[in-house]
Amino acid sequence: MSEPAFLSSLACRCSDPPISWLMRLTLERPELISLAVGFTDDETLPVGEVGALVDELLRDDAGARIALQYGSTEGDPELRKLTLDYVCRQDGLAPGAALSPEDVVITNGSQQLLYLVSEVLCDPGDIVIIEDPTYFVYLGIVEAMGICAAPVPLESDGLSLDGLKQTLQRLKDTGDLRRLKLLNLVTYSQNPTGRTMSFEKKRETLAIVRHYEAAAGHPLFILEDAAYRDLRFEGPDTPSFKSLDPANERVVYANTYSKPFSSGVRLGYGVLPPTLMQHVLRAKGNQDFGSPNFNQRLLALALRTGVYERHLPAMQAGYRRRRDLMRAALERHFPRRVRWQEVRGGMYYWPELPPQTDTSREGPIFRAALDAGVLYVPGDLCFSDSPLRPKPKHCMRLSFGGAPSAQIEEGIRRLGAVMKTVGL
Amino acid sequence: MSEPAFLSSLACRCSDPPISWLMRLTLERPELISLAVGFTDDETLPVGEVGALVDELLRDDAGARIALQYGSTEGDPELRKLTLDYVCRQDGLAPGAALSPEDVVITNGSQQLLYLVSEVLCDPGDIVIIEDPTYFVYLGIVEAMGICAAPVPLESDGLSLDGLKQTLQRLKDTGDLRRLKLLNLVTYSQNPTGRTMSFEKKRETLAIVRHYEAAAGHPLFILEDAAYRDLRFEGPDTPSFKSLDPANERVVYANTYSKPFSSGVRLGYGVLPPTLMQHVLRAKGNQDFGSPNFNQRLLALALRTGVYERHLPAMQAGYRRRRDLMRAALERHFPRRVRWQEVRGGMYYWPELPPQTDTSREGPIFRAALDAGVLYVPGDLCFSDSPLRPKPKHCMRLSFGGAPSAQIEEGIRRLGAVMKTVGL
Repeated sequence: MSEPAFLSSLACRCSDPPISWLMRLTLERPELISLAVGFTDDETLPVGEVGALVDELLRDDAGARIALQYGSTEGDPELRKLTLDYVCRQDGLAPGAALSPEDVVITNGSQQLLYLVSEVLCDPGDIVIIEDPTYFVYLGIVEAMGICAAPVPLESDGLSLDGLKQTLQRLKDTGDLRRLKLLNLVTYSQNPTGRTMSFEKKRETLAIVRHYEAAAGHPLFILEDAAYRDLRFEGPDTPSFKSLDPANERVVYANTYSKPFSSGVRLGYGVLPPTLMQHVLRAKGNQDFGSPNFNQRLLALALRTGVYERHLPAMQAGYRRRRDLMRAALERHFPRRVRWQEVRGGMYYWPELPPQTDTSREGPIFRAALDAGVLYVPGDLCFSDSPLRPKPKHCMRLSFGGAPSAQIEEGIRRLGAVMKTVGL
Repeated sequence: MSEPAFLSSLACRCSDPPISWLMRLTLERPELISLAVGFTDDETLPVGEVGALVDELLRDDAGARIALQYGSTEGDPELRKLTLDYVCRQDGLAPGAALSPEDVVITNGSQQLLYLVSEVLCDPGDIVIIEDPTYFVYLGIVEAMGICAAPVPLESDGLSLDGLKQTLQRLKDTGDLRRLKLLNLVTYSQNPTGRTMSFEKKRETLAIVRHYEAAAGHPLFILEDAAYRDLRFEGPDTPSFKSLDPANERVVYANTYSKPFSSGVRLGYGVLPPTLMQHVLRAKGNQDFGSPNFNQRLLALALRTGVYERHLPAMQAGYRRRRDLMRAALERHFPRRVRWQEVRGGMYYWPELPPQTDTSREGPIFRAALDAGVLYVPGDLCFSDSPLRPKPKHCMRLSFGGAPSAQIEEGIRRLGAVMKTVGL
């Protein structure tokens, strides 16, 4: 807290986000191979499609003027309807039962929805259950808002249900359950581990959480971050938590058009219980009173014409190719004692080194990797602070999304060589 | 505070914003002539220009892939540089002296910057000096953040300096000056009054505020909202507060590309002291980690090619035509006892009715206007609560920006007729 006296508590709580110094390193040393950056696959970005869509959007003068004009805080009506249709199609639900376009909000990436939902639910000292490890940018929100993160171990098929029960029971026993507001779960090809939560675990999670609501004294919401759902390139899709919330009461479903379509167009969306929607819209009204209408009309056109869904297989094949490249390189170059779980979507591998190894920014591996010209995300950045366990330091997040695919093998080869120099 | 128990204090403080029910009225009764909505002039939106810019942007494959990819939290480097050049050109400053592109952040409209700056400076109970009346969406931020607004009367050439001195002295006398963080001033063709703050008043304001800093114990920042600066259609431009802050220490300059170019592309920007920039970027990192790169590359191209500046005169001429239509209609149809100040930019007239008149949502004029098929923004929405004065209820904000220009006269005619029925 050596911050200047004029800052708010929120500003004083914020430290420099990891992305800042990772980005700085990348800019200072452009020759680095970055396996750190979570950028989307450049090679399958829909350049031609976006050009054709904009042409079509602007050809009709009245439609063009709508696209270039302000919209509403909640978002373009057609995009909200098409988004709901898309979510319902993925989940095998019938729109119109409990869900209507009124339950959909369009946001600046799904990130803004994570922010808004946390902002309208949490005061400093309130508790959010998160996966251990989790999406590190969400940890920035946790820090800024003074939220107490309660990390629950992550297994290969999602959250540990035993860990969840223990956490809830502990909060109940200590009288802290009233401060619990939310579970934030990245349920598809999770960032950073690549793991997907099984449908069975989703069902049980909801039941477990419901069981504790009476003691909490209020609804406990699940914020399902499905940002990597459309980036699945192998195996069947898993229905969402939303599909288990037919009355639309407990689940905030957050997804994005950024990663699957274009991160430069940068739109996300949420399907929310009406009890939360009103408050999220008020908060968004203050932040920006609506995401760019031009981008929204573009996405609505992409969905209406089928361009969005027709582009998905090419994009997914691109990520599969990149995953294959990284997998082969990991097998070839990484020491035997380093383990990783196979991934079937998203853009991350999460190798675990032997427990005593230190992959952190201050440790020998990160420095040696920099010297060897390769950058990764130290795994400790993906773990929150917790009095209940030391912060694990033996993992790393490797992205196959951002680097030119020709660099993936060389990056992994260099990292493997670094590991060998420290005796792995 | 009848809100559900699970909400945050911020959410509990938020009430439904006026824009919601104004929007609802507009949607429910599409035949209404809306002189309420602050939409930009549809008729001068740069449809052809945007089409040509997107074509050019996507023609180069490498550039296209940058535009469709994630960017950085602070914004596209070229857009930040061109933005600084533009601001410096308007203000007759030399970039590179105290100001660098590092001092520029690109935001989701200038609204996001108002939010971010308030968020990193203000805790609940902190004080912001605002104009009386002011931009009503900022009052939503004030409410959400639990900020105490200290309204200072607005004169025809900007803030009352006597009022400012009295307010600062009162805060000093009551020991509250330490809680003062910011002055938020809409300095060009203000929303809602259309008034522009004179350069002399800016200079004196800075001196007055500096004088109280010792007692405050910390810097007092000026947030200059220049959102309507580029919409000036008559008379000379006024240099900004920023031009009076050569060391870049006290002034946050907020402006937007939304209103002058395209509100559907929805980008704003800020030029900030380095002491604040770091904190604003951390907060923006949590909210969205960057505005859409596609929109930013489009604007950068519009600035680099001169399309942006070449479009300004047509846009300004459009607003002047609309102003002329409304002025003629006001003169023709409004009762003599209703007064208004001439406006030379922006999109609002601010008629003042006799002091005992009630233009509020609950009053007879608003209802009768609705019955007559015309909508305006009740003036009381633009005043904060204050123990020091009753909230004025005798004004109205009339926009000549949003309605089809053919409806402007008819809208004013109906409003004038309504005023006559209540005896004005």
